[in-house]
Amino acid sequence: MPTAYVFINTKPDSMPEVLKEVRAVKGVEVAEMVYGVYDIAAKVKTDTMDQLKQIIAFNIRKIDNVSSTQTLMVVP
Amino acid sequence: MPTAYVFINTKPDSMPEVLKEVRAVKGVEVAEMVYGVYDIAAKVKTDTMDQLKQIIAFNIRKIDNVSSTQTLMVVP
Amino acid sequence: MPTAYVFINTKPDSMPEVLKEVRAVKGVEVAEMVYGVYDIAAKVKTDTMDQLKQIIAFNIRKIDNVSSTQTLMVVP
Amino acid sequence: MPTAYVFINTKPDSMPEVLKEVRAVKGVEVAEMVYGVYDIAAKVKTDTMDQLKQIIAFNIRKIDNVSSTQTLMVVP
Amino acid sequence: MPTAYVFINTKPDSMPEVLKEVRAVKGVEVAEMVYGVYDIAAKVKTDTMDQLKQIIAFNIRKIDNVSSTQTLMVVP
Amino acid sequence: MPTAYVFINTKPDSMPEVLKEVRAVKGVEVAEMVYGVYDIAAKVKTDTMDQLKQIIAFNIRKIDNVSSTQTLMVVP
Amino acid sequence: MPTAYVFINTKPDSMPEVLKEVRAVKGVEVAEMVYGVYDIAAKVKTDTMDQLKQIIAFNIRKIDNVSSTQTLMVVP
Amino acid sequence: MPTAYVFINTKPDSMPEVLKEVRAVKGVEVAEMVYGVYDIAAKVKTDTMDQLKQIIAFNIRKIDNVSSTQTLMVVP
Repeated sequence: MPTAYVFINTKPDSMPEVLKEVRAVKGVEVAEMVYGVYDIAAKVKTDTMDQLKQIIAFNIRKIDNVSSTQTLMVVP
Repeated sequence: MPTAYVFINTKPDSMPEVLKEVRAVKGVEVAEMVYGVYDIAAKVKTDTMDQLKQIIAFNIRKIDNVSSTQTLMVVP
Repeated sequence: MPTAYVFINTKPDSMPEVLKEVRAVKGVEVAEMVYGVYDIAAKVKTDTMDQLKQIIAFNIRKIDNVSSTQTLMVVP
Repeated sequence: MPTAYVFINTKPDSMPEVLKEVRAVKGVEVAEMVYGVYDIAAKVKTDTMDQLKQIIAFNIRKIDNVSSTQTLMVVP
Repeated sequence: MPTAYVFINTKPDSMPEVLKEVRAVKGVEVAEMVYGVYDIAAKVKTDTMDQLKQIIAFNIRKIDNVSSTQTLMVVP
Repeated sequence: MPTAYVFINTKPDSMPEVLKEVRAVKGVEVAEMVYGVYDIAAKVKTDTMDQLKQIIAFNIRKIDNVSSTQTLMVVP
Repeated sequence: MPTAYVFINTKPDSMPEVLKEVRAVKGVEVAEMVYGVYDIAAKVKTDTMDQLKQIIAFNIRKIDNVSSTQTLMVVP
Repeated sequence: MPTAYVFINTKPDSMPEVLKEVRAVKGVEVAEMVYGVYDIAAKVKTDTMDQLKQIIAFNIRKIDNVSSTQTLMVVP
């Protein structure tokens, strides 16, 4: 199954709200606040590569107050 | 021919529209959505160094919702 | 005691005001303007991990004109 | 429970061997090869902050051919 | 077809030799010396995700004097 | 004399205007558009450390459409 | 007094030894293991800019198994 | 005239020697030790793009104890 880590930076004052919305996205297995260079770490698992793209490019990135995302594809 | 890779980050919710506009820029040989630290990877090939500058500094960077660009000049 | 370095980038024209506000946050031991990849370096020391989270995620990040923060947890 | 993501870069020709050894470390919940800026993404979960430190600073970092590690602490 | 950009840093004195070897790897469509944060930019195109992994993790990364690689997966 | 390199990122569509304004700042010896991870490279030379701070923190960073700056202090 | 933060990356298996040696350097006020993109965070305070240079360029950087250092100058 | 900034990281204990050798390279206008993410900043100016490539890829990068280089091309 296509799997990816998605690291999210948010507008500084909006992290808790973004975290809640990321967790509600279908396909997001887990999402957590982290200390470090990113604000939120999420893991996404889908049935197809196309679903993965939809979730990252549309469902996660279109959440309000997401500033940027970085994706690490898991190599099967 | 002067050639460069241009990596583009976009406002998170605007990647598909930016991608379409980047592809329409004259001199852009290819532009693709990528997973990783950038959102779009483009390759630009021009007749002169001056055209390269025009395309990157003006045609690509002036597209709405481009957040930042990074350029790798190909060494001939 | 849970301790962390918090590096802050600010809107470019707002560094002095942000610095003043960061210094006023309870738990912030020291905050200084720095030359380099960040604008402000702060050190935060608290009684509990939960207070640390409150200070970073809420008190510091909710200051106006903070663009981004990066945290280095001190390993006890 | 203290939890952290550990991203690992390896000597380029040694990734598969390092991955196998990281997976064998007690406390490592999952470790996967990834495409992107890191070579391996691991998740570590322990009973105490002190165990977390032992696992990262000693068990993982002392594996042969680990070039560097970066840690993201999960905020509970 | 699975496609990826692979950016390569080499031991500083070995770039030309590494470039020649990268170009000889089956599946590498193009590889060029670049000015910027990486030394070599390559594009890899394969029939399957598994071949892509073989080429990046083994054929490219096992070349002598490759210091590190970073991969950007093209989103189909 | 205190000397520093200041690398500037600008709002993507405003580089030429920012460049003109940076060049007009007293103490800026040279400022040039660059290809790479930054948009503008400037060199600042002043009589005192305090003037250097004024120029970077106030004169340069307060220019409209500067997104971020990074400073490398020259070691005398 | 010239002051700087020095962030140190070490050979992965040598952090505890490097930390001990950094702490023994005259002028190093504090040095701590950290979780994140660096391995050790140190703060250096000296009487003159020249001493600061000596401590960073020679005393710290010449410690065995230091891989790289990054310096943030505190702006007085 | 083709011009570029070259930022150099060195083996930590070899900076002064590398600096001396970089300064001796024909075409290197200036080279200075810096505090920040790089160890040495150099500016290279040549008659042709091909000479620039020779100086960066061969004369500078082949100096002993250079760990990595990053180049910013000045846009004429």
